[in-house]
Amino acid sequence: MRIVVLDGHTLNPGDLSWDEIAQLGSLEVHDRSTDGEIVARARGAEIVLTNKTRLSAATIADLPALRFIAVLATGYDVVDVRAARARGIPVSNVPEYSTDSVAQHTMALLLELASAVGEHDRAVHAGDWSRSIDFCFWRRAPIELVGLTFGVLGFGQIGRRVGALASALGMRVLAAGRSRDDRPGAW
Amino acid sequence: MRIVVLDGHTLNPGDLSWDEIAQLGSLEVHDRSTDGEIVARARGAEIVLTNKTRLSAATIADLPALRFIAVLATGYDVVDVRAARARGIPVSNVPEYSTDSVAQHTMALLLELASAVGEHDRAVHAGDWSRSIDFCFWRRAPIELVGLTFGVLGFGQIGRRVGALASALGMRVLAAGRSRDDRPGAW
Repeated sequence: MRIVVLDGHTLNPGDLSWDEIAQLGSLEVHDRSTDGEIVARARGAEIVLTNKTRLSAATIADLPALRFIAVLATGYDVVDVRAARARGIPVSNVPEYSTDSVAQHTMALLLELASAVGEHDRAVHAGDWSRSIDFCFWRRAPIELVGLTFGVLGFGQIGRRVGALASALGMRVLAAGRSRDDRPGAW
Repeated sequence: MRIVVLDGHTLNPGDLSWDEIAQLGSLEVHDRSTDGEIVARARGAEIVLTNKTRLSAATIADLPALRFIAVLATGYDVVDVRAARARGIPVSNVPEYSTDSVAQHTMALLLELASAVGEHDRAVHAGDWSRSIDFCFWRRAPIELVGLTFGVLGFGQIGRRVGALASALGMRVLAAGRSRDDRPGAW
């Protein structure tokens, strides 16, 4: 069975292993593929894996051997799922792989805004603290987050995790979502 | 009653009010005081407030009217407490004002190390992401904190708060302290 990864670089720049997939057949991994390269590379493949490379209806029609499309991401808008369905080709995605990472990154951004570590890192390295006439030094007063209100739009897996972290920091969390399950009560 | 603040600037650079203290007597606030200025400024004062300005035994001896020393900080090593005690002068400090702020700042430093927001902020502003041939961009892979171990040395108020935040991030927390109360079991 021929398996082709069209754009594996961003998922696996070298720190992960493709071995488990390679054991399923003959695997060919491309870092990136342009639109013009897709059909030549995926011709004869039963399985195509894509991250952001588009599989349009025309491309799918040009790949008669194709039996399965795996999207190496959450969003599957890069695949014409109607064309795939018409051919009976299942399309998989990865609906939840980033909850912890996105929640952590959200807190990192919040704390950068509140505490400005990056800005102070640069200032201290530039000698500003050494030149300060006071024992303490800041470029702008840090914002203490305790007691402030944190708003979450979309209260799914990620929104909930982010809300829990904001709550741990002593913040009041307000959340809004479109669906019943998104409501804070389901936290 | 004469009240003198010897070095009020770092505590209150302008965003706080001295009014409540001013209502207790005649208040004089200095931003900073050199060793040579202390006695002239504090002469006749019943109350002296200091943050980092040293009140040595000799200085206390030169201030016969002094009846109370308030340290505007946690550490009171700037005051010769033996000399104060010998004169019956109480010395107060602020043993816990920064727990939330220090815990938040510790997380800000941890997340700067793990997610490098400051470094990526500079890189993105410099156009590095715009020039990236991939949809995602990083200078160095972020470190996901979930499942990693976080060590706390000194498990008092601040250490506990920091430990709780690391725990909320999904980290395993190990703590060590000198006293029985510092042990994790008391968390």
